[in-house]
Amino acid sequence: MTDLKQVAGGGLLDRRAFLRSGIGLSLAGFADTSAAQALPVVAPAYDIPAWMRMPGGADLAYGLPAAQEQALQRQQHAGPPEDSGFAVWRTPLASQPGVITPSGLHFAVHHNGIPDIDPQQHRLMIHGLVERPLSFDLEQLARYPLVSQIRFIECSGNTAANAASPWARDESCQQLFGEISGSEWAGVPLKLLLREAGIKPAAKWVIAEGADGGSHSRSVPLEKLLDDAIVALYQNGERLRPSQGYPMRLLLPGWEGNVNVKWLHRLEVCDAPAYTKDESGLYSEVLANGEIERFSFFMDVKSVITHPSGQQILPEALGYYEIAGLAWSGYGRITRVEVSADGGLSWADAHLHGPVLDKALTRFSIPWQWDGRSSVLLSRATDEFGRVQPTRAHWKRRYADHSFNHYNAQQAWRVARNGRVENVYV
Amino acid sequence: MTDLKQVAGGGLLDRRAFLRSGIGLSLAGFADTSAAQALPVVAPAYDIPAWMRMPGGADLAYGLPAAQEQALQRQQHAGPPEDSGFAVWRTPLASQPGVITPSGLHFAVHHNGIPDIDPQQHRLMIHGLVERPLSFDLEQLARYPLVSQIRFIECSGNTAANAASPWARDESCQQLFGEISGSEWAGVPLKLLLREAGIKPAAKWVIAEGADGGSHSRSVPLEKLLDDAIVALYQNGERLRPSQGYPMRLLLPGWEGNVNVKWLHRLEVCDAPAYTKDESGLYSEVLANGEIERFSFFMDVKSVITHPSGQQILPEALGYYEIAGLAWSGYGRITRVEVSADGGLSWADAHLHGPVLDKALTRFSIPWQWDGRSSVLLSRATDEFGRVQPTRAHWKRRYADHSFNHYNAQQAWRVARNGRVENVYV
Repeated sequence: MTDLKQVAGGGLLDRRAFLRSGIGLSLAGFADTSAAQALPVVAPAYDIPAWMRMPGGADLAYGLPAAQEQALQRQQHAGPPEDSGFAVWRTPLASQPGVITPSGLHFAVHHNGIPDIDPQQHRLMIHGLVERPLSFDLEQLARYPLVSQIRFIECSGNTAANAASPWARDESCQQLFGEISGSEWAGVPLKLLLREAGIKPAAKWVIAEGADGGSHSRSVPLEKLLDDAIVALYQNGERLRPSQGYPMRLLLPGWEGNVNVKWLHRLEVCDAPAYTKDESGLYSEVLANGEIERFSFFMDVKSVITHPSGQQILPEALGYYEIAGLAWSGYGRITRVEVSADGGLSWADAHLHGPVLDKALTRFSIPWQWDGRSSVLLSRATDEFGRVQPTRAHWKRRYADHSFNHYNAQQAWRVARNGRVENVYV
Repeated sequence: MTDLKQVAGGGLLDRRAFLRSGIGLSLAGFADTSAAQALPVVAPAYDIPAWMRMPGGADLAYGLPAAQEQALQRQQHAGPPEDSGFAVWRTPLASQPGVITPSGLHFAVHHNGIPDIDPQQHRLMIHGLVERPLSFDLEQLARYPLVSQIRFIECSGNTAANAASPWARDESCQQLFGEISGSEWAGVPLKLLLREAGIKPAAKWVIAEGADGGSHSRSVPLEKLLDDAIVALYQNGERLRPSQGYPMRLLLPGWEGNVNVKWLHRLEVCDAPAYTKDESGLYSEVLANGEIERFSFFMDVKSVITHPSGQQILPEALGYYEIAGLAWSGYGRITRVEVSADGGLSWADAHLHGPVLDKALTRFSIPWQWDGRSSVLLSRATDEFGRVQPTRAHWKRRYADHSFNHYNAQQAWRVARNGRVENVYV
């Protein structure tokens, strides 16, 4: 059973030990506490359940989650449910096993509620420093090539509580990390539309404005719009939902959520940023030296262990567990995730599950044999440009004490002896 | 404008012409009929739409599609809506821009309606030729490693109308091709559970049975279950929906839909197949020589142009269009899709959109400058094993005239001069 050797302290096992074939590996190989021993052997006679003794029910033209699963919802953080102003809805990240978030559970941050847009009347206007100002309706956009891409979107305020709060709050993964989601977005490459309008030589920036009641607007370098930006019309195989910008949003892969302007209706090509209220206030960061960082678009390399994670309870105080989580980088692909089960003293490489995509969520996992002692779990991601997720202390050195955006430090979860998992700082 | 040279007959253009950067390409580069000319130039003053003059509305804890999009539904082919027996629900494939089908729109074929399963009471039993028969509940399965994978599932009866009907029926892409969908499935590798039970040397097959009222059951070679099979618990980031087998289904990547047994509750390890009703009847095929083909698991290489496709109407009788569609192979990855715009006389390579994944839907596209004449569009997919999608005539030579399963021939759509698209045989 050499594959069950520890590869780092605290009981971390080889990342492929359980998936590798041909080694006759069995959970029964573990000592007294294996999950296998808890598995009931089938009795010679077994009961036919009630639902096999009757005809089944009919299906729906649009399928819905099972009634028993409808408690899985987004949690509203800011504002009462009827609020039409600033609102934050967090995704239940710990329940997500892969790179796709269900559209109905995708996180949302609204600045002015959800506008009730008539898609027939909606237009995307491109004007400013262009040869020919243009206006596109949905039918006209449908004539252009459509591309699809699996990407994450993360609010720059995701995990803000761990940045600004002097004590580690006992919160769930959803509460702390619920402002990131992954989807397959599809739409029209923006460079095609900008070329159509004809960009003038002086052009350097584009002001993107949403058609919400507060005209949420951000200035974006033209370069990004000519690179991988799209006007997204579809999410996960169907039209955008109202919460995600129906009928169209800007998608700027890897960049902070609020520049992915929802309900997009206007792109003004300019020679300088506009310093709109949304970029001069909330979405600027104060550095430790007192300077203000503006236009901090990239979401840096980051990861979180989603299982075990905050407020979960491990069912047994000893035995085998899979440590699993998600990693991402706004700069590109994830190349490595290391996990520690001893509070950062030693680390082992987690297995990266495919597909590992550019600016997309990447699932990682590593087997862990818990010895039942209080253990602190951490993950540390690295991307293809060698960017490594910092410690909390390292992150705090760069920013003012009250800053909270763009927090990407390593997350620590303590598993207590009774199996309860809690957010801690290390 | 060399990139606008035709690469095959009927107006097919280089597959990357419109996405390639730096060539100043514009739709205005086209002659009189460009979409660009139909784009209205923005007036100096423009109206602020009504929804920007008022606060927006509140969000929901579980987001839903926009009211204006709720006509996008699955279509029921067999059985009245209240039917609890055999029912077929087809996905609106032509509206899907990428590799993910929304869970609510995933096609479904039910043999005995949807059982109303209590997930707390549901068990997965593994017995037969094993050292130790086992029974797993959801909590026990949660202790095992979880893997996620983007895969297609296709009913072996997909596109059956084109196989068995002597005339090409004037039907939509949804009606003809709506029994295929793509999802990110996540669950436990079956090999781990089988190892846990301990497979006896004589074992060769496994009978998989669903917990529906008709005990839908299929025999599957043990080899596949030890390869890439999973007990799927999640689809597209959330628990399986009832229509897709809640709380668990068998996922056999690349194999015909009905062996991906929904509501999975029993795996009996055997030395021979069981010849259940579901594999001896409907899911066997009669060959041209009168022989019966059983256990025809693999879904062969196939593709379809989803735009333009059956019953769509092109808005203008001349001009630029993007021909786009989906390709897949139950054997592996798609390596090539060729498109013809002249009924198969000449072909050009379409662009394959990434990620190109194993046994998953792959999007392809190619620009097309339609000259307004009646045109027949075809696509022809090739997979990594060199399997090429056959012509209809070639497919028909292999099967008895009334056979209809496993039809994977090249699909032809005729675009009439008035822009209407119709299913044709060539």
